[in-house]
Amino acid sequence: MKKIRAAVVGYGNIGRYVIEALEAAADFEVAGVVRRASSLQGESGMAYPVVSSLDELDDVDVAILCTPSRLVEKSAEVALKAGISTVDSFDIHSGIADMRARLNAIACESGAAALISAGWDPGSDSVVRALLEVCAPQGITYTNFGPGMSMGHTVAVKAIEGVKAALSMTIPLGTGIHRRMVYVELEDGYDFEAVAAAIKSDAYFVHDETHVTRVESVDALLDMGHGVNMVRKGVSGKTQNQRFEFNMSINNPALTSQILVAGARAVLRQKPGAYTMIEIPLIDFLPGDREQIIRRLV
Amino acid sequence: MKKIRAAVVGYGNIGRYVIEALEAAADFEVAGVVRRASSLQGESGMAYPVVSSLDELDDVDVAILCTPSRLVEKSAEVALKAGISTVDSFDIHSGIADMRARLNAIACESGAAALISAGWDPGSDSVVRALLEVCAPQGITYTNFGPGMSMGHTVAVKAIEGVKAALSMTIPLGTGIHRRMVYVELEDGYDFEAVAAAIKSDAYFVHDETHVTRVESVDALLDMGHGVNMVRKGVSGKTQNQRFEFNMSINNPALTSQILVAGARAVLRQKPGAYTMIEIPLIDFLPGDREQIIRRLV
Repeated sequence: MKKIRAAVVGYGNIGRYVIEALEAAADFEVAGVVRRASSLQGESGMAYPVVSSLDELDDVDVAILCTPSRLVEKSAEVALKAGISTVDSFDIHSGIADMRARLNAIACESGAAALISAGWDPGSDSVVRALLEVCAPQGITYTNFGPGMSMGHTVAVKAIEGVKAALSMTIPLGTGIHRRMVYVELEDGYDFEAVAAAIKSDAYFVHDETHVTRVESVDALLDMGHGVNMVRKGVSGKTQNQRFEFNMSINNPALTSQILVAGARAVLRQKPGAYTMIEIPLIDFLPGDREQIIRRLV
Repeated sequence: MKKIRAAVVGYGNIGRYVIEALEAAADFEVAGVVRRASSLQGESGMAYPVVSSLDELDDVDVAILCTPSRLVEKSAEVALKAGISTVDSFDIHSGIADMRARLNAIACESGAAALISAGWDPGSDSVVRALLEVCAPQGITYTNFGPGMSMGHTVAVKAIEGVKAALSMTIPLGTGIHRRMVYVELEDGYDFEAVAAAIKSDAYFVHDETHVTRVESVDALLDMGHGVNMVRKGVSGKTQNQRFEFNMSINNPALTSQILVAGARAVLRQKPGAYTMIEIPLIDFLPGDREQIIRRLV
């Protein structure tokens, strides 16, 4: 059986974990890695071709986009216009629907397909949110994140003057309310209280309970574990008080990367267009014979 | 906007809750109820036409099959052959794949679609099991049921000589192991110990820890609440120990009926054929504008 040839676009944290997930998936092979030209120097020990442009790789079926979210759309456009389907974990919730519309037009024209926002939130959590609305259409779902590192908040702290290194941990307080525990190393000559005040008044933090702590080493605190607790209490038909809960405790980049690889499988089974995970049957994400999957899981 | 006209086939516990769920869904209207001819006598106060055959109802878009599982396939055949799409909550796991194959042939020929096994297990639990395999392809998922009444086990107890009324409760012990708590009223002249021994040696109970208790009134113990706890510990890519958990505590027939109604919406959006829930995008089960759903849930 012919294997799916996947290109990994971007080789940061997610890209490395995607390589692992591809190596663990019997139906995939790694076509190669696409990096910025400036990152190609000094790369050694990589078992796969490393190039600076997708068109340098042969017979690519699908491109797994592991670039930062703000670069995803551009990467997707390049691949789709070359007729190569894509999957990404674009995670800016407010931008998903619009990006989907733009990529849908490009994908339909080129005959390829794009699966967007296929990580865990957005991604598998979105699937759970949709399922819980199927089960109880009326009610409230709360998504509680953490404990775990927030990339977006950490980047926001690092942008503040006087911060040398930072970590922002998300702590769930229930009903979708989160505490921010911020750990910073200071640049020489800066006042901690002033830096802490700047962090707390930043748009990322101003609405949340935020605690800032000065530490000697942020590196010593880093942990890629994360978690989610989702709860819904709602109404099925006319019956109140139906309760649902989903929890996970996971290595964050490993889960994102695994879902990207499953998404790479799924996107190749779709008609041209752009999709989110809730628009694709779950069976399409799984390898193997469909009838066997139904016998095993349904 | 034209409403979906649904016929409710079968009017037991599930049928009654399906009527409630249809009344609560703005995009549906009840075309009528189909019952056995022998059940038509004495029916009063029903707000909808009650007939003994589906073809007596006008403009039916979808038939929601609320008959016992062993009668589902026959009901589905009748509807599908008349070009009416169907949804059911057929719950005999070992029979699902074969029934799907047979109904698929009929549906493809008639141009209708069938969604089978759309309750909570099989059904929404199947969706969760599939999602957890997407997230961590290697590992074990345990589905723990209860505490709640098992229909199948209760019927098995009632079939034993000397049992006047019975209730079999399923108690989760973890890792998919269950205790059976059986409550019986005895017929006059039967020995409790002999009846209890017969229950424990029945095929439904012989492999499980089973406790039989004699009670004055089984009715006094009845409660339609049920629950599930699903856990998976598995591997994402090459990263071990990813943990996932899904819990619910629900009114059993209310949830089954709500999923049937959502399934009635979804099945009308599919090409001819027979499907299980994991073969249909979740968004198809939800009412309203798709782009709005994506903005809200993804």
